[in-house]
Amino acid sequence: MRILIDPRYSDYDTRGHVNNAVYLTYFEIGRHHAWRALTGLAEDYPFIMLESSVRYVSQAKWGVPLAMDITVAEVRTKAWVWAYRIVDSRDERLVAEGRTVQVMFDYDAQRSVPIPAHIREQLTRAIEARE
Amino acid sequence: MRILIDPRYSDYDTRGHVNNAVYLTYFEIGRHHAWRALTGLAEDYPFIMLESSVRYVSQAKWGVPLAMDITVAEVRTKAWVWAYRIVDSRDERLVAEGRTVQVMFDYDAQRSVPIPAHIREQLTRAIEARE
Amino acid sequence: MRILIDPRYSDYDTRGHVNNAVYLTYFEIGRHHAWRALTGLAEDYPFIMLESSVRYVSQAKWGVPLAMDITVAEVRTKAWVWAYRIVDSRDERLVAEGRTVQVMFDYDAQRSVPIPAHIREQLTRAIEARE
Amino acid sequence: MRILIDPRYSDYDTRGHVNNAVYLTYFEIGRHHAWRALTGLAEDYPFIMLESSVRYVSQAKWGVPLAMDITVAEVRTKAWVWAYRIVDSRDERLVAEGRTVQVMFDYDAQRSVPIPAHIREQLTRAIEARE
Repeated sequence: MRILIDPRYSDYDTRGHVNNAVYLTYFEIGRHHAWRALTGLAEDYPFIMLESSVRYVSQAKWGVPLAMDITVAEVRTKAWVWAYRIVDSRDERLVAEGRTVQVMFDYDAQRSVPIPAHIREQLTRAIEARE
Repeated sequence: MRILIDPRYSDYDTRGHVNNAVYLTYFEIGRHHAWRALTGLAEDYPFIMLESSVRYVSQAKWGVPLAMDITVAEVRTKAWVWAYRIVDSRDERLVAEGRTVQVMFDYDAQRSVPIPAHIREQLTRAIEARE
Repeated sequence: MRILIDPRYSDYDTRGHVNNAVYLTYFEIGRHHAWRALTGLAEDYPFIMLESSVRYVSQAKWGVPLAMDITVAEVRTKAWVWAYRIVDSRDERLVAEGRTVQVMFDYDAQRSVPIPAHIREQLTRAIEARE
Repeated sequence: MRILIDPRYSDYDTRGHVNNAVYLTYFEIGRHHAWRALTGLAEDYPFIMLESSVRYVSQAKWGVPLAMDITVAEVRTKAWVWAYRIVDSRDERLVAEGRTVQVMFDYDAQRSVPIPAHIREQLTRAIEARE
């Protein structure tokens, strides 16, 4: 799934490139779109973050249009992995890539829970669609 | 009431100075400290913002230590005004100043409410302490 | 000029609505689009902020699609005023409005300068187009 | 090296805990302090980020005081690794931990360079001090 990123001036730091922490916010934007596309759900997310990582490959300066590919990389019992690639949309130059692991979470009970069957099916289908 | 601000690298933009929107976040930090000092309350704020304004007087570059004075400028029935002055703490050079108006708010009922008597007393006392 | 805002999950605070400081970032996004549309310039902005203000009219919850109208409200010798209205794009409910004053600035010389004639013409035309 | 974190209200998201991306900003605050302590340098950083990762261990709610330990985990020819642990400072409960890899970078020439000898010495000494 590809989405366009709308960089904000405040995303850039004194070096004139996107600040390193902002990539996790970009990943979050991707999760939002991917989650809605997969589940049709618009309310607050029923999962919690376990891990995230970013590899910074090249600099994104102010004015560079960015796009992000988000894919489901793995599905476990309670958790799953999303992978992200952010590119300069003009020439597909790789800017950054990363992964996040998140787990289904019952915020009222404050504990992790298995991924519901219908969501698992969508996540799994998203993997297969790529293969 | 004076507090020290702990600028973050991500507060600075491509021009090397604090981004204009970040001053409202600094004001919010000031409100947090002032609110706790006045009321002793640590939970989520029982008020909502009505207005805010900032006047940018001089630039704050990376490395400049900042301090903020926050004062109660006015107390109304439901709302009150906080005023802020942000300075270079080395020489008191004025960097920015502003005001915010906020109103007591019942988030469950989703409506504004009068300022409780004990909070009004503290806010009023804060004005008088300055005079 | 109307633009769509792409709210980010991190724009929302513990109350579930857009944080008060984020509106200045939304205004900045509007300036970016308006500046490019008026001048055709894509490089870093040759102006600096003098003042900004926000009036918070109603809450924007997670999931509410936002749009912003940005207009030129006034043109002076060195400075000009942009006015902003942020609405729920589904029903035009007003969420927030505000103004910013900015001045043409020579960052190398560190001083304000008159608005160049061709930019003044575009800014003035933008006012007349509204009348 | 331990530093106190000054959480901001805007760091918290709709779930009432520190947003996942903010931890990279906390790490950045730690780098700032560690870099100054090690090198005595206050100007803009002469390095660039290669990688970062965060493991989210427990939630940090609004009001929880946070502290961070930052240590040098590894020193290579051009790059080095900083490791971070963020805890609830009242009881040392682990909230999040992570690592960043950064490389010395000549921003004018736009290429990585070896770590200067005197900085290497300080970074290496920081590792030995922990052993």
